[in-house]
Amino acid sequence: MLSKNQIKLISNLQKKKFRYKNRLFVAEGVKVIKEFLKSKFELSALYATADIFIQSEKNCQIITEAELKKISNLSTPQTALGVFKIPENTVIKHKGISLALDGVRDPGNLGTLIRQCDWFGVDQLICSLDTVDAYNPKVVQASMGSLTRVDVIYTDLPSFLQQDQRMKLGAFMDGESIYQADINAEECILILGNEANGITSEIEMLIDQKVSIPQYGEIQATESLNVATAAAILTSEIKRKSF
Amino acid sequence: MLSKNQIKLISNLQKKKFRYKNRLFVAEGVKVIKEFLKSKFELSALYATADIFIQSEKNCQIITEAELKKISNLSTPQTALGVFKIPENTVIKHKGISLALDGVRDPGNLGTLIRQCDWFGVDQLICSLDTVDAYNPKVVQASMGSLTRVDVIYTDLPSFLQQDQRMKLGAFMDGESIYQADINAEECILILGNEANGITSEIEMLIDQKVSIPQYGEIQATESLNVATAAAILTSEIKRKSF
Repeated sequence: MLSKNQIKLISNLQKKKFRYKNRLFVAEGVKVIKEFLKSKFELSALYATADIFIQSEKNCQIITEAELKKISNLSTPQTALGVFKIPENTVIKHKGISLALDGVRDPGNLGTLIRQCDWFGVDQLICSLDTVDAYNPKVVQASMGSLTRVDVIYTDLPSFLQQDQRMKLGAFMDGESIYQADINAEECILILGNEANGITSEIEMLIDQKVSIPQYGEIQATESLNVATAAAILTSEIKRKSF
Repeated sequence: MLSKNQIKLISNLQKKKFRYKNRLFVAEGVKVIKEFLKSKFELSALYATADIFIQSEKNCQIITEAELKKISNLSTPQTALGVFKIPENTVIKHKGISLALDGVRDPGNLGTLIRQCDWFGVDQLICSLDTVDAYNPKVVQASMGSLTRVDVIYTDLPSFLQQDQRMKLGAFMDGESIYQADINAEECILILGNEANGITSEIEMLIDQKVSIPQYGEIQATESLNVATAAAILTSEIKRKSF
């Protein structure tokens, strides 16, 4: 049976403040939990409504569906919930291709961006301090285990960019077409801005090349692509140019 | 003041059955409503908490915030809600570049796909009958007005593909790289499958060329890109090749 304290702790992990105070976060669903279990992430507690993990993990506590509902962040709880430790920030590598986010706020977008980094082999995602937290339950779910292979690093973005020697590409509506732009595709940082306001002027000053995705629709067409969509097209093209 | 009948009708429009019985759907927010007002869509009723539309639209009914909350689909209602008529299916053009969806289920994904079609100038989006409804409130919100410029057509997908002479490209994990594939980029249909199960075997048989996006991550990396992300990269490349 779950104690009142356990329920309170796990529910509190929905809030960023509590996650970082305890350095813990929640992952749900057998598939995602198994990815975290075989990764560098350290398990703190594991709960399941059936003995799915018993053979691999002695620490799994069997709980009822009603108990799972109390601690789950999902409207339809899955059969298992894991509490893992938030790792310390990894050292930034300053080489190859990195992605940097300047104030991305939507958890679904960040999750999709982490999943894309995984796909494209971009193993470091640098985030401004006002970017949504990668251990937010919605981000963890949307990233579908890719958090185990992509380091998400929160840092003062202007300082990081000032110290890094790689070419800095910024996604802008009025940038040069990524297909034509003369870029260093092997060593660069691709920067994407906030969903509504784009890249801040402070970061804009640090950018070497503005890039964009050619638009083929009517003039009155949609104002912008979703930030994750734009990142995917740009990253795919940079990766392609780097070979 | 809103009558009980008005509240009931508008609330019922959350359900697909009622939307098609009445051939009406809901759009919220001044910006999106303004896009529908200046498009081919016909207005049925307009409600706002302030006189935003009074000069342009005589039919706007001023309601209280409490009333708006009763009819809104949003957790944080915006200042206006419009009820528009669902247009009749447009005639399929059978030329140029089209996108076809085989069982896409997530409203957010369909909204993003409609927005991307708008961006890339793809003006017809053909959907299998089990694809999520484009007039679902979540789709309308996620597509951000792009529904006014992209025709979403529901049809029996196998029959449509059998009758269409264009080259049929299917997005598959084991397809040929879109960068290398020999395709007819000016006249083609790009087909994307369901989020979990991909393209059905019935549709697979009708495909001329399987295409995919090169993956650069580790072998154990993420299984697939989000369907909208994959569509964006593929469409961008097809558009580029078509010029």
